[in-house]
This record gives sequence, structure tokens and C-alpha cells, in this order.
Amino acid sequence: MGRVTERRKVIRIRDGAVSTRPDTLVAEEPLEIRLNGKPLAITMRTPGDDFALAAGFLVSEGVLAEASDLRNIVYCAGATADGSNTYNVVDVTTAPGVTVPDITLERNVYTTSSCGLCGKASLDAVRTTTRHPIADTPPLRVTPELLAGLPDRLRAAQRVFDRTGGLHAAALFDEHGELLDVREDVGRHNAVDKLVGRALQNGGLPLSRTVLMVSGRASFELAQKAVMAGIPVLAAVSAPSSLAVDLAAETGMTLVGFLRGSSMNVYAGEERIALRAAAVRA
Amino acid sequence: MGRVTERRKVIRIRDGAVSTRPDTLVAEEPLEIRLNGKPLAITMRTPGDDFALAAGFLVSEGVLAEASDLRNIVYCAGATADGSNTYNVVDVTTAPGVTVPDITLERNVYTTSSCGLCGKASLDAVRTTTRHPIADTPPLRVTPELLAGLPDRLRAAQRVFDRTGGLHAAALFDEHGELLDVREDVGRHNAVDKLVGRALQNGGLPLSRTVLMVSGRASFELAQKAVMAGIPVLAAVSAPSSLAVDLAAETGMTLVGFLRGSSMNVYAGEERIALRAAAVRA
Repeated sequence: MGRVTERRKVIRIRDGAVSTRPDTLVAEEPLEIRLNGKPLAITMRTPGDDFALAAGFLVSEGVLAEASDLRNIVYCAGATADGSNTYNVVDVTTAPGVTVPDITLERNVYTTSSCGLCGKASLDAVRTTTRHPIADTPPLRVTPELLAGLPDRLRAAQRVFDRTGGLHAAALFDEHGELLDVREDVGRHNAVDKLVGRALQNGGLPLSRTVLMVSGRASFELAQKAVMAGIPVLAAVSAPSSLAVDLAAETGMTLVGFLRGSSMNVYAGEERIALRAAAVRA
Repeated sequence: MGRVTERRKVIRIRDGAVSTRPDTLVAEEPLEIRLNGKPLAITMRTPGDDFALAAGFLVSEGVLAEASDLRNIVYCAGATADGSNTYNVVDVTTAPGVTVPDITLERNVYTTSSCGLCGKASLDAVRTTTRHPIADTPPLRVTPELLAGLPDRLRAAQRVFDRTGGLHAAALFDEHGELLDVREDVGRHNAVDKLVGRALQNGGLPLSRTVLMVSGRASFELAQKAVMAGIPVLAAVSAPSSLAVDLAAETGMTLVGFLRGSSMNVYAGEERIALRAAAVRA
């Protein structure tokens, strides 16, 4: 596991009693992502799966959509005083012919108007940018019982959380509830980027027969990442935001929130949930 | 509350029973922050306190440190097809004489070396950039009992969470445990930025006699925001990261994590916690 966790001294206070012991913490380090040699973004992340994180980030940004778009990813070495590699800078080179959008600091300003920034414009941008529109044929369909079992399976698959309590997790399941992959990171977006990046590297995009399960809330950006990867079902343990719900509705993605025990809320795309029609009450 | 929450239809599934009802969701919209007319950053946020959010963000970035650094903040209107104001773009104008650093996309790359990015460099940058070093005289000192009471008071002060379950919260308390201010946002960083920005606007920086309490984890970036505002004690309900602990240790900030019930872990700056020495066990 190496740098995934680090040890620090901690003073524990329990009902007034004080003790000192070593504690295991989740590691956090900056990662600079470069695109064809040009600095693009910096994210604070848990070291590990850095190439997948970079690839997944670029899927979310609309730069990469399949394995053949990617030429290679390397750690950028040198330039430190002692010439060592910090393993905190990666450079992603796209394949010849891949159009790299002019991604700037304002890369999320999808509207051309200078003051027209709004949620609707953000939704439109994702819908028109994705190369993996959600139109699953045959339709993916899961039961509430299958969904209800996912949080426990996600938790069971988390290796680092139990030691640190400090990690967000994201997992991909197939339509039968089988775990395909799980990633943990100090940043919730990073965990999803790592999943999507690994899928891209393995030729697995679009993820059109999968359910993405996340340990926390469903924000717009998480929903965006799912849409860009062609994931038809996003399930979250906690609440979604209004814009995440709107994005799901616009793109045809199923969005499930508050997935706890045998309960859940379905905010969009209910046609993929096998509901017992007789049980529906207005 | 206006745009702080929005209503959407939701399908509830409870132990197999299905019902449809309106649900209250936390609102999420993009906010573009401009500095002296130039686009600087976009954050997804819960609308409200937008000027404070922008001001606090710029404190964290080292642009603003006191009220006199700020000339004004306005919503940028116009430029939409119908000429309306989306209230999603704010422009912050600095006072004459304020040096605006060359903040670019790589603004978090504090090192000049091209591949030397590392946690240590990030720590050094915050320590050398802040204009409110933590050196409290007389020393602020709080009891474990005072700290133990803060999570419940934070939760009690949260107005939107109970309706949506979807918000992060941050609050400032004085050294006697009195609530000074509380903010909620879909983004955890935004809640802290809103607190710090309001303090700046009110002439309250540095926040050298306060405790910052956050509802989730303590990441490097949250610790950075506390340090830049001169806050001597950061307390979190959940786990800190390794880099947050290191930043606290380097800057002299007290960092408390896993603050639950009468238990807590003190990761740095224990001199501000009034421990009963006799109770200390090695």
C-alpha cells in the first residue's frame, strides 16, 4: 500500500482519559496533470493509480473517450534539486489526430456569453460533449433488492477506510450486482476518475452495463463523470443536488440517492428500476 | 431561502413499497469568480452568500487578507440572450495598491521547479504566504468538554441540512464555545470560504480567537483555508489527511479530528487543549 497511508502521533481523548499512540492517516499529496506537456490541473489526491486518475479526469473533461485516444502516460521526472522523481506530476500524451479542446482555467465555462453562466448551460454542455450517450440497448434493468445490497458490498471492498476512516469510495458493479472495481481516495471525484480511467485504459468505455456506487453525496460533477463515461445508473449513499438530478433527467441516466438498508429514492431514470407496479402508490 | 433548495419529484422505495412525492434538494449552481474583471475560477456552489464566498476564496488564495484590500464585489449582469442576470458571475475588484499575484490555472504550483511538486512544497507555500501567522498572544486555550459540545451545536445551527440531508456545514465558535457564524453549502470548501469571506468583509480577520468546526473530514485545503484566515483551532467530525496534519504542525495550528461524543483525536497543537496532565498515559 506504500504511500496510501501514513503514520502520525495522535493524542486520544476518551471520556477525559488521555493517551498517546501512533495513528494511521490517509495520505494526501498534490498531483499535477499535464496534457501533451502543458500543465492542466492540480488535484489533491491519495497517491496510487495516478495514471488512471489522469486518464479518468480527461474523460470527464471530454478529451479522451476510448483507449485509442491515449498514446501514453508517464511520470515527469527530474527538475528537483536532487534530481529525484516526486511521482506527483504526470504527463498524458494523446494519440495523433485527437483533437484537444482549448482547455483553460475557464474550462467549465461552456457558454460563450460572458455572463450567461448557469446550471442549464452546464447541463447542455455535458449532454452535447459526451461521446458515450446513454441509450442502452437492451435496457439495463436492476431490482431494488440488488441496489440495496450495494452499499454493504462497497464497504466490504474498502481496504483503507477501516484503518483511517478518511476515504471516499466508488465502485462499479455489473447489472447482476457483481463488483467490477473499487477505488478509494481522499477526494471523492478522484475515486470516480480512477475507476473511469482504468476502464478507459482497459478498453472498457463506455461503461454501458454498469452501476456506479459512491459512498457520499451525488453532486453535479460526479453525475457529469458518470455521464461522460456512459454509465447508465448512479447510486449514492447520501443526497443528490438539484443539478445532479437535472443532469440525470436530461441525459437519461438513472439516479438513486439515500440508498440505505432497504430504502432508496429514485430521482430520475426509474425505467431501469424493476418496480412492482402493483406497489406504486400515488 | 429562495434558491438554497429546490423541489423535485422523487420515487421513494421503502421495504418494497413504492410512492411518489416531492422532495427538497439542495440547490447547486456554478459560480464564476472574476478578479479585477478577469475570470479566475469556477466553483459549483449552493447559491447565497456569493460575495462572501468570492472574498473567502481570495483569502485562501493569498489575494485578500483584510477588509481594506477589497474595493467592491458585484454581480456581473447582462450578456445573456434576454439580458437577465444569472447571479452566477461575481467580479471582485481589489483596492488600489493591492498586489495581485499572477494566479493562473497552475496557481497551486507553488514550486518553481517543473517537477518538484510535492506536499512539502505545498506546506512551505502556505506558511510563507499567509499574512496572518498563528502566534496567538495570549494563547487561546479550550477544554475537551468545550470541543465535545461543538458538533451538536453545529448540527443544531444547520437550517437546510434537515430538509435535504445534502449540505456540508462549517461554523466559527469563540473560545467560550459561543457560535459566531455558520454556513452551509453543497461544497465543503465553499462553506469555509463563506465564513472567512464574511469575516473579511466585517473587518474580522485574522480570526485569531476562534475555533473552526467542520462537518466532515479535514483535508489539506480546509487546513490551508484555516491557516490563511489565522484560525488557531480546526476541529473536524471525521478524519484528517496526512498533509492536513503536517500543515497544522508546521504552522502551529491545533488540529482535532474524530470529534464525536466525548471522544476526539488531537493531531497537532495540543498546547491549546486544556488536558488534565495527570490523566496522560503514555
